[in-house]
Amino acid sequence: MADSTVTYEQLNDLSAEFDDAETELIRQDVIVKAPLYEKRQKLIAQIPNFWPLVFEQASPDIDEFIQPSDSSLLLNSLVNLTVSRFEIEDGGKGDPRSLLFRFEFNENEHFEDKVIEKKFWQRKAKCGWTGLVSEPVEIQWKKGKDLTGGLLGTVKKVWAARQAQTKDAASKASKDLTIDERALKKKIEDTGLGSMSFFAWFGYVGHNVSAEESQEATETARRERLSRQAGDETTDTNGANDGGNDEDDHDDENELEIFPEGETLAIAISEDLWPNAIKYFTQAQEQDEVSDDDFESEAGDEKEGEEETAYSDEEPPPAKRLKT
Amino acid sequence: MADSTVTYEQLNDLSAEFDDAETELIRQDVIVKAPLYEKRQKLIAQIPNFWPLVFEQASPDIDEFIQPSDSSLLLNSLVNLTVSRFEIEDGGKGDPRSLLFRFEFNENEHFEDKVIEKKFWQRKAKCGWTGLVSEPVEIQWKKGKDLTGGLLGTVKKVWAARQAQTKDAASKASKDLTIDERALKKKIEDTGLGSMSFFAWFGYVGHNVSAEESQEATETARRERLSRQAGDETTDTNGANDGGNDEDDHDDENELEIFPEGETLAIAISEDLWPNAIKYFTQAQEQDEVSDDDFESEAGDEKEGEEETAYSDEEPPPAKRLKT
Repeated sequence: MADSTVTYEQLNDLSAEFDDAETELIRQDVIVKAPLYEKRQKLIAQIPNFWPLVFEQASPDIDEFIQPSDSSLLLNSLVNLTVSRFEIEDGGKGDPRSLLFRFEFNENEHFEDKVIEKKFWQRKAKCGWTGLVSEPVEIQWKKGKDLTGGLLGTVKKVWAARQAQTKDAASKASKDLTIDERALKKKIEDTGLGSMSFFAWFGYVGHNVSAEESQEATETARRERLSRQAGDETTDTNGANDGGNDEDDHDDENELEIFPEGETLAIAISEDLWPNAIKYFTQAQEQDEVSDDDFESEAGDEKEGEEETAYSDEEPPPAKRLKT
Repeated sequence: MADSTVTYEQLNDLSAEFDDAETELIRQDVIVKAPLYEKRQKLIAQIPNFWPLVFEQASPDIDEFIQPSDSSLLLNSLVNLTVSRFEIEDGGKGDPRSLLFRFEFNENEHFEDKVIEKKFWQRKAKCGWTGLVSEPVEIQWKKGKDLTGGLLGTVKKVWAARQAQTKDAASKASKDLTIDERALKKKIEDTGLGSMSFFAWFGYVGHNVSAEESQEATETARRERLSRQAGDETTDTNGANDGGNDEDDHDDENELEIFPEGETLAIAISEDLWPNAIKYFTQAQEQDEVSDDDFESEAGDEKEGEEETAYSDEEPPPAKRLKT
């Protein structure tokens, strides 16, 4: 081939083109499947314990974050989950990768909230990093029932204090932790991430990238890419968008993160648990199902409204027909 | 809600609607990204060792199937990989989920082949099972160098014999294994699936579902679904497409399968390794990369054509600019 020199910039530019294509395909996906998700919502609203059973069948990359006490709380009180792409709802032109998780709960012994929502925004940082960022969400824990042992509340407090700082002060103070931050850091170390409650996920923050920084970085990267593609191969991007050292600028944020895998979990729920919920629910049913023969021999005699196939909160239904 | 009864059929019908939507979205995906994959092919063709380095970074669900001897063969001789959706190429109206893997190799000590191809067809069985099926592919091993210890050849022989049988004979003989089949079964047991070569994947067959059966099952399922949706809820599908006992009809096939996870691996390669190849390649580079400072301090003096950043077959390139 005449030109046998391949640069990182060329590979990264192509990756960016793939990302753009993928983003538009996600937009299509959301539009095409919206009526199907509505239909699903109507069906599963009639099945108590649908979501708890789905969570019980979750793949290991979700299940590993669910402690026994979380599992028991979810099983007893999770009544609905919806995952939506809030930036493109109602004709919005935002990023289809941004996510809103809405959990609905019954009265339970742990917290007062009936609804807990968490938003993740797709952002691009000046250093080239792209991904989901969020804000800590508070939960109104009942006395002595906080599954995060106070961590979630502390995260919110620390985050609010940082938000209140001017940018100058934040930059000056960034190396010295405040009293609250030191307390948070110690609590995180004491808890150990392996035994962290699923509900600590609501405290995930991620990289500190504002909407403005993201928009600017996106535009700059696109401009540079176009200029390179127009033949100006000497454009010096000084490491921006080079994919090489994405994490460097943000390393110091991580020590106050109570749920470092927050983005991974958000993606696993939105791309696996949420779209495949019926599959997981069916799987849960099959595990407790009487054999098909048993079902079929009874089917003829079965009358609508009989109680033996009724679906209670305590146990999965034994037979083919699900009822509430 | 007025109607509070949800049946498995309703859930399965909705899943089928999701599947149909997903299939069309995959078709879109393939069309939209085709020019990007062409562009990528032109770039990576200039980078020796691109694919071996990508395989080295493969996620655990691929890596677990690659033995040390496979890895060494791939590293030394894999020169190209393409994954294509052969049923929809050149305007074809087939299933976009069907896959063609094409591996290109350099001269190597293990086999004569320069190209090894494997096709997977997306099929639906009468029992409701859907997934990828394949045919065993032979490899021209050099003497004493067969990484599958003769298994691949035996699988091909057994498969060809079964294909040659009439349907009646096959059904009569299905419980009694032939001499070759018994030999194959013993070999599989002796090898142990955990230490099976990656190249045994080329012997994956999967469920025995013909194109005709698949087409018929697809049409029947769609007809029944439409009829149920039109209000005829009493349609008795006799377990067809009920998702409940998909595997029952095919259990006896599995004992002669040398690579039971063949479909899983095909999906992992096509949906992870293939689309994310640049990411994995970059990851491989970063592991051996000199620091950015080193690179940048040299960059000014660097002349096009200097050999210190040349990219050899033996080691990953040390600097930012990749050359062949």
